Amino acid sequence: MENNIYELQYAMDTFYFLVCGALVMWMAAGFAMLEAGLVRSKNTTEILTKNVALFAIACTMYLVCGYQIMYGGGYFLSGITEVDSAAVLADYAAREDGFQGGSIYSGASDFFFQVVFVATAMSIVSGAVAERMKLWAFLAFAVVLTGFIYPMEGGWTWGGNDVFGLYNLGDLGFSDFAGSGIVHMAGAAAALAGVILLGARKGKYGPNGEVRAIPGANLPLATLGTFILWMGWFGFNGGSVLKLGDIANANSVAVVFMNTNAAAAGGLIGALLLAYILFRKADLTMALNGALAGLVAITAEPSTPTPFAATLIGFVGGLIVVMSILTLDKIKIDDPVGAISVHGVVGLFGLLVVPLTNDGASFSGQLIGAVTIFAWVFVTSLIVWMVIKAVMGLRVSEEDEYEGVDLSECGMEAYPEFTASK
Amino acid sequence: MENNIYELQYAMDTFYFLVCGALVMWMAAGFAMLEAGLVRSKNTTEILTKNVALFAIACTMYLVCGYQIMYGGGYFLSGITEVDSAAVLADYAAREDGFQGGSIYSGASDFFFQVVFVATAMSIVSGAVAERMKLWAFLAFAVVLTGFIYPMEGGWTWGGNDVFGLYNLGDLGFSDFAGSGIVHMAGAAAALAGVILLGARKGKYGPNGEVRAIPGANLPLATLGTFILWMGWFGFNGGSVLKLGDIANANSVAVVFMNTNAAAAGGLIGALLLAYILFRKADLTMALNGALAGLVAITAEPSTPTPFAATLIGFVGGLIVVMSILTLDKIKIDDPVGAISVHGVVGLFGLLVVPLTNDGASFSGQLIGAVTIFAWVFVTSLIVWMVIKAVMGLRVSEEDEYEGVDLSECGMEAYPEFTASK
Amino acid sequence: MENNIYELQYAMDTFYFLVCGALVMWMAAGFAMLEAGLVRSKNTTEILTKNVALFAIACTMYLVCGYQIMYGGGYFLSGITEVDSAAVLADYAAREDGFQGGSIYSGASDFFFQVVFVATAMSIVSGAVAERMKLWAFLAFAVVLTGFIYPMEGGWTWGGNDVFGLYNLGDLGFSDFAGSGIVHMAGAAAALAGVILLGARKGKYGPNGEVRAIPGANLPLATLGTFILWMGWFGFNGGSVLKLGDIANANSVAVVFMNTNAAAAGGLIGALLLAYILFRKADLTMALNGALAGLVAITAEPSTPTPFAATLIGFVGGLIVVMSILTLDKIKIDDPVGAISVHGVVGLFGLLVVPLTNDGASFSGQLIGAVTIFAWVFVTSLIVWMVIKAVMGLRVSEEDEYEGVDLSECGMEAYPEFTASK
Repeated sequence: MENNIYELQYAMDTFYFLVCGALVMWMAAGFAMLEAGLVRSKNTTEILTKNVALFAIACTMYLVCGYQIMYGGGYFLSGITEVDSAAVLADYAAREDGFQGGSIYSGASDFFFQVVFVATAMSIVSGAVAERMKLWAFLAFAVVLTGFIYPMEGGWTWGGNDVFGLYNLGDLGFSDFAGSGIVHMAGAAAALAGVILLGARKGKYGPNGEVRAIPGANLPLATLGTFILWMGWFGFNGGSVLKLGDIANANSVAVVFMNTNAAAAGGLIGALLLAYILFRKADLTMALNGALAGLVAITAEPSTPTPFAATLIGFVGGLIVVMSILTLDKIKIDDPVGAISVHGVVGLFGLLVVPLTNDGASFSGQLIGAVTIFAWVFVTSLIVWMVIKAVMGLRVSEEDEYEGVDLSECGMEAYPEFTASK
Repeated sequence: MENNIYELQYAMDTFYFLVCGALVMWMAAGFAMLEAGLVRSKNTTEILTKNVALFAIACTMYLVCGYQIMYGGGYFLSGITEVDSAAVLADYAAREDGFQGGSIYSGASDFFFQVVFVATAMSIVSGAVAERMKLWAFLAFAVVLTGFIYPMEGGWTWGGNDVFGLYNLGDLGFSDFAGSGIVHMAGAAAALAGVILLGARKGKYGPNGEVRAIPGANLPLATLGTFILWMGWFGFNGGSVLKLGDIANANSVAVVFMNTNAAAAGGLIGALLLAYILFRKADLTMALNGALAGLVAITAEPSTPTPFAATLIGFVGGLIVVMSILTLDKIKIDDPVGAISVHGVVGLFGLLVVPLTNDGASFSGQLIGAVTIFAWVFVTSLIVWMVIKAVMGLRVSEEDEYEGVDLSECGMEAYPEFTASK
Repeated sequence: MENNIYELQYAMDTFYFLVCGALVMWMAAGFAMLEAGLVRSKNTTEILTKNVALFAIACTMYLVCGYQIMYGGGYFLSGITEVDSAAVLADYAAREDGFQGGSIYSGASDFFFQVVFVATAMSIVSGAVAERMKLWAFLAFAVVLTGFIYPMEGGWTWGGNDVFGLYNLGDLGFSDFAGSGIVHMAGAAAALAGVILLGARKGKYGPNGEVRAIPGANLPLATLGTFILWMGWFGFNGGSVLKLGDIANANSVAVVFMNTNAAAAGGLIGALLLAYILFRKADLTMALNGALAGLVAITAEPSTPTPFAATLIGFVGGLIVVMSILTLDKIKIDDPVGAISVHGVVGLFGLLVVPLTNDGASFSGQLIGAVTIFAWVFVTSLIVWMVIKAVMGLRVSEEDEYEGVDLSECGMEAYPEFTASK
């Protein structure tokens, strides 16, 4: 009978992973809608194509080699072999803390949960380089980021590997619960490298340094995308507890859901208020980025703060994202959707506030971890982008950029009947 | 080993709450899409901003004080403390019916589930006052409704408190399973008070009393919103069983899912047929409102009807909503999305049919409950709207209404490239 | 205590069904968005109306008679009676393999899961006949397909009934895990019969046999629809394991999630590459159809392939769908969304590759099953379409088709402010 209790816990923990993974997969739709809403209509088909294709590439590359690099093992050719119930039960029986011990669950569910995280990291890139990067150059980069760059730093953190055999981030007191740094800042670092090489969109910055707003074509889509991401984040953070099936862990999952929601709400309010103070308008796109900033900020540690602290962390994240978006525009880093600010700047903030509520993390450990992740992803990405640039070029022609990349890259318009262009 | 069975049940019930809560949170996206699809394009950014902001406000205010008013306790500063597994197990052991007793689950999961209900109540308001109410006036009202008005009547019903110490609705035979009255009619009552003070949109009613249709700008969005709400409602009603983890409760949850779906289908068919009879057209917006009406109608008691009865309750709800929308227009109550009809009129209907299938409810109890909720929410809302009107005004200027509130309130258009305006 | 373990397993398996069912219900929104995005704006309201109405009809007809035809039993009038916990526990106790035996779960959860499959089959039809079929003719067909045609062939396969008392598909080695044939190819067969009777849209094929592209009006919607379907498919395939609550089954569910995702990714990549080779463009709509093709292809057996095999099956599905769409256009079968290719041709492919990874299936069994399903659904559908044609006509008038069916059938435009028409 003891064994049947283990079987139930195993099934419950596996299902919990799968449900959370499905929610994170759903975030791919969120990024696609957010980005499609924030670019101009003439570049919408292309950004959609990038988003669906990067998701497919991420899923395939992580299966082929990424998971193996990050965690060892690998499923691509062999399939999942541990469907041997007796072996699983032996695992349970062998450990001292049995039922209350760490989670034991299906390897396939772990893969499913992990693979959608890779896709999230890559989704962050597509927004920042939107409206001017060649589609196939972007997809070539996606192959390398999802198959190698992300798995390497993921291995140093969640995988527990030493960084080039030199130091171990966990031992130094680095803690990143669900990936403010490992996923979000990493995606932003890759994006930043691309944006620097790529340059700004034509017309974004005037000859006298003025910043010109380039409004997104479809704000309901952008809002939908934000809601999707908000929902999917419950899986992203909630699943990162890694176990559901006992009282302590179930509580932890519930606290993570509550705090994740509180931080998103705080971030939205913070950005909405600050933008109103600055512009005297209720700026929807800032509010959306504020919600996402709140989510990114809490992601490094959603299980230890009180709800008040979570709301506050989100709120400050919302303030930061507004300031960051304005600052990046001043230094002419053109990020059409604000991804570098949301995921990079606020991701760093998220890492740095972890020690305030989690004694297991140290400020120095967070800093070293952030520098390690950023340096690795930025430098390797820069190299990869440069290679791609040399081989096939990164940027579409000036004419294609003017006409919109939908026709040149994809051969079809996103809204052929709505836009009076040409 | 007994204890491990309790731990599993606790984890299962907690997860069930979290999954249902995530589905209800998703309804916020549904309301946003529904309303964004049914207003004109010039007012779309503003309605989206209201929807995301009200959700953030609801989540924050319910955390700050709402939950405490409604149920006692409170989490804002303290966090969730009952992560003490031993104490939880002692709770299980202390009661006579142990495993089969009422649900014991994480307090954080309960908060998460409850907080998304508050947001739902407030989402109902935004649609009814769309296209003419000032954004910040609306958000000020949201603070009071979600932090005080809703929690008070929620406390009298689900919280079990006496109404001003005078009478107890539960004792009088009032029963509202998932909130046809407590959430939906309450939201509609608040909306009605606002609409009465606000008046109709310019041009809605002609000088000779004729009603002019003001078509929504984006019906795919409205349809998407309805599907989202339909899906989220499984969490709304399904989670309201409050326990999953034994045979009897699992059956009840399953019956609720089945009946909720049946009622939505019935409502859609009812509204589609009646609208066809009246207009000789397959009226999509009536069909959508019919599905929502079916959902609202079954919400007061989805666990006791047979599927046939559930379909019928939904079907009648669908008929009622068509008649109600036409009637409200005749008496010049201008509700751009039909929210007062869907959630208010049909919410009342839902309350009143409960005694037909649930012996625990009495017709008089339902009536007293409905009057109590309506009177409380309507009167307090009216007062709050009047105060806001006096302090900052409720209605945008005539010019802003003509030009659209997107530019005046939010400084950006929702579809800058699609509309040939100006 | 043993009994409490059974109660937990029952609750877990029931919840698993409900969560998967909610995901499949969500696919209805996916089909609606996909189709609304791929038709022209003048036919968008109508396709949305068809989609919501067919879902309501499917839910009602399957309740009234469909479930009973397919599986016996029936809930419409009686409701679910087996809420008797003692009887459920007796079922558990009576069988030899107790806890590890086949799943026992709430009948209502089974109904809920099954009913959304019917709706999926019908959703496939609406896309193929879009832009020219009369709305009420379509809905009349929906009544028959969901209440009779689908339940009959579902009964021969999942229901275990003999085909007209002649032969038993299961005994012949037919295996269709989640319905590549039973649901998807069946829907496509019904669609094909309708399309043949209906003819092509005006202007689709030129006088000299040239094929004219008719671009969809809203590609972000089509992309959203694909993501929704992709997500919902985890419920579609994952729920078809039929049990979660022990180690072996939990593993199987996890493998199904992983493989379903891998096949979708493979399909997208296959279609994207082949379309690029053919057209030198990154064709978004082909990529979307490729993802769906990957999903359809793996649906007949997602539990036995390795992830590599799953990716490959999806990849080939993606190649097939591109070739099929081009071929159908050559023989002038006008399917505006590619539904017959995605669900029919690839559905057949999915059936035929099952024996490669599943020893329980035979190639001859798959072929006989495919022929049986196709012949039954195609012939009965053809008859029903012909009867409807005789009684009320299938096709809208030439003028209505030219003006768009939104105004003639539904009396409202989907995007009244965006299109400069008239």
